[in-house]
Amino acid sequence: MSGVSRRGLLGGIGAAGAGAAAIGFGAGWAAQGSEPDDAGSAPTTFDLYGEHQSGIVTPVQDRLHFAAFDVLTDDRESLVALLQAWTVAAAEMMAGRPAGPDISSYNAPPDDTGEAIGLPSSRLTITFGFGRSLFDDRFGLADRLPEALVELPHFPGDNLDPARSDGDLCVQACADDPQVAVHAVRNLARIGFGTVGVRWSQLGFGKTSTTTRDEQTPRNLMGFKDGTMNLKSDEQSDLDEHVWVEPSDDRDAWLAGGSYLVARRINMTIEIWDRQTLQSQEGDIGRTKAEGAPLSGGTEHDDPDFELAGRDGPLIDPASHVALAHPTANNGVRLLRRGYNFVDGSTEIGRLDAGLFFLAYVTDPRSHYIPMQTQLASKDRLQEYLQHTGSALFAIPGGIAPGEHVGQALFA
Amino acid sequence: MSGVSRRGLLGGIGAAGAGAAAIGFGAGWAAQGSEPDDAGSAPTTFDLYGEHQSGIVTPVQDRLHFAAFDVLTDDRESLVALLQAWTVAAAEMMAGRPAGPDISSYNAPPDDTGEAIGLPSSRLTITFGFGRSLFDDRFGLADRLPEALVELPHFPGDNLDPARSDGDLCVQACADDPQVAVHAVRNLARIGFGTVGVRWSQLGFGKTSTTTRDEQTPRNLMGFKDGTMNLKSDEQSDLDEHVWVEPSDDRDAWLAGGSYLVARRINMTIEIWDRQTLQSQEGDIGRTKAEGAPLSGGTEHDDPDFELAGRDGPLIDPASHVALAHPTANNGVRLLRRGYNFVDGSTEIGRLDAGLFFLAYVTDPRSHYIPMQTQLASKDRLQEYLQHTGSALFAIPGGIAPGEHVGQALFA
Repeated sequence: MSGVSRRGLLGGIGAAGAGAAAIGFGAGWAAQGSEPDDAGSAPTTFDLYGEHQSGIVTPVQDRLHFAAFDVLTDDRESLVALLQAWTVAAAEMMAGRPAGPDISSYNAPPDDTGEAIGLPSSRLTITFGFGRSLFDDRFGLADRLPEALVELPHFPGDNLDPARSDGDLCVQACADDPQVAVHAVRNLARIGFGTVGVRWSQLGFGKTSTTTRDEQTPRNLMGFKDGTMNLKSDEQSDLDEHVWVEPSDDRDAWLAGGSYLVARRINMTIEIWDRQTLQSQEGDIGRTKAEGAPLSGGTEHDDPDFELAGRDGPLIDPASHVALAHPTANNGVRLLRRGYNFVDGSTEIGRLDAGLFFLAYVTDPRSHYIPMQTQLASKDRLQEYLQHTGSALFAIPGGIAPGEHVGQALFA
Repeated sequence: MSGVSRRGLLGGIGAAGAGAAAIGFGAGWAAQGSEPDDAGSAPTTFDLYGEHQSGIVTPVQDRLHFAAFDVLTDDRESLVALLQAWTVAAAEMMAGRPAGPDISSYNAPPDDTGEAIGLPSSRLTITFGFGRSLFDDRFGLADRLPEALVELPHFPGDNLDPARSDGDLCVQACADDPQVAVHAVRNLARIGFGTVGVRWSQLGFGKTSTTTRDEQTPRNLMGFKDGTMNLKSDEQSDLDEHVWVEPSDDRDAWLAGGSYLVARRINMTIEIWDRQTLQSQEGDIGRTKAEGAPLSGGTEHDDPDFELAGRDGPLIDPASHVALAHPTANNGVRLLRRGYNFVDGSTEIGRLDAGLFFLAYVTDPRSHYIPMQTQLASKDRLQEYLQHTGSALFAIPGGIAPGEHVGQALFA
């Protein structure tokens, strides 16, 4: 009953006139899994506070709701106040509680929209980021624009929709229950009413990578395992090298403990893909479909051998996805990916509007995304089946301590 | 290892040239939960065959992918062949197996698209239906058009998008894992390539009703419990009266054991709703938000008392949703609902494109939907926050025996 004692039994005002029993929201939320974890079991809730934001190396949850916002005010104090309010609400929701405390005042709109009442916290994480456009002249942040927060170049094959790209702010909500992730984004958008507006949002229904070793590698909508090579949360030195920002000057000092998030909405022409032979599909990827093993042999987690030749040349085509995305072809670069499969209904010509919402956390997009994507976009055999329809880059500030607000170092 | 023995170990052709171990799809699928259930535990797979189709009174799964199709051919035999192929594939997928047997011939596209490899069957059900347009002059079915398969009238407040409405055929895939539901629709669409095209499709991420008594009533995006009064699978006489078709003539004799499915995409202006006081929200619904109890008192499953008066008149407003949708206001009509919450990103003005994808199975839409919706659309206080943006009605044929195909009685 910690939910009740934590917030008090807020009383049953709804039917009070009829003398009904006292029933408030407290009882509903009491069922939530926000208790300390049993020793040895996996966490059921994550903490907003820490060296880094949650939702980066955190074990990848099943579902995603991602939203980019435009700031509607020019007032720096209003922006800071929003970040303060978002921080408080995010901490509450991640703990499995309502977004705000006042949810049963009869003559006010409830602080929380209610659709997550009775649901466990579902390992919710909420991660915040800042887009390049935030550093224009509106908020006095121009001299804090990190050099690495570039405008991504136009890559071959990009067909970007401005209405699915960029944004001043981003919120990534991941949870095992989509209703919990949707609830989080909705309540943050609501708190920001008048200060920010949703620019675009994206739901993802199935994760395509993991950051732990004890899980099966999930599959993307091409039917192949995805993210076999993903950075894992226990690879500390690689995380330091490839994910966390190493501040270098006054412009990015506020990003200590932070990262950069590359978000790309990648449509797949899955109907065309489905008509290719298994040989063709496996050749494009460079791995077997069933097991995910490199075509040079072995099992999923064996290293691919790009030199090993078969009758007709290398067993792994140098133009395959695995060859071109491999660290050996990218100056040793590794990615921490957090992508999700999406299906947004169907298109006007009756094809599924489906693909991969690619999310990757990198130490510097200039070294860790742009060169790789430049290469993939021009050489990758997979490219024939892909179209990038949305794109954004965000600076992800480091973690905070209780009492601070998200991104506080930027405004200090 | 029944997955392997059932379909044979299909061999590891991918890396054969390199002498790798034999690894086929069989091994991946062996992990699936298609085994007979342990005595006493809830089923993990459902059977395609039976008196009724699955996915109607079946315990409601968490996620939905719904698709409506247009038939692209005028050839009756091609349509029947498709239904035969769909039946076989649906039975396989519901059992947790691939959509087709040939998934590792190196020189052919795999029969299955692969993204559900390694996933359990997730209680998948696949339910098929026929729209009114199927009964035109293309397939010789005009004299089999049931009288109840009407064109739904235009209701006040309808703002229907033809690209989200109607269709010759429908497929409802429900599963606890959205990747499994998406996989089912995708593979059926693929099998139908050239014969049918997807007209529209809709994902739902959270169920809003149950057909069992041991589950919490889920919540819709207004934050209220939804479907408290839903018909339950053990109410046999009410199911007979309100859900299953009672054939009355030659036109609907083929619908024995079947039903009608009303599908409505109902957008909610949730940002506006969220600004209303709790009093206003509860007054609109006629129930408390926290508990779902009628405003006349008691707890969720107590009967509302529409006569009970408070200081200012009836405690439950006669224009509230619960009053207008209640059986007592609708000639005793009860609904078997199977709706889902949806969020399809955001609109051009930065609002969530969100709401309820309403699905209800009824014995006759003329008695069981049209009068109720006519009343709700003109009187319901909730209507201020709702806009119906998609609409379809399908005749859902009865169940089949092994060896038959879905809808066989229609073509007999």
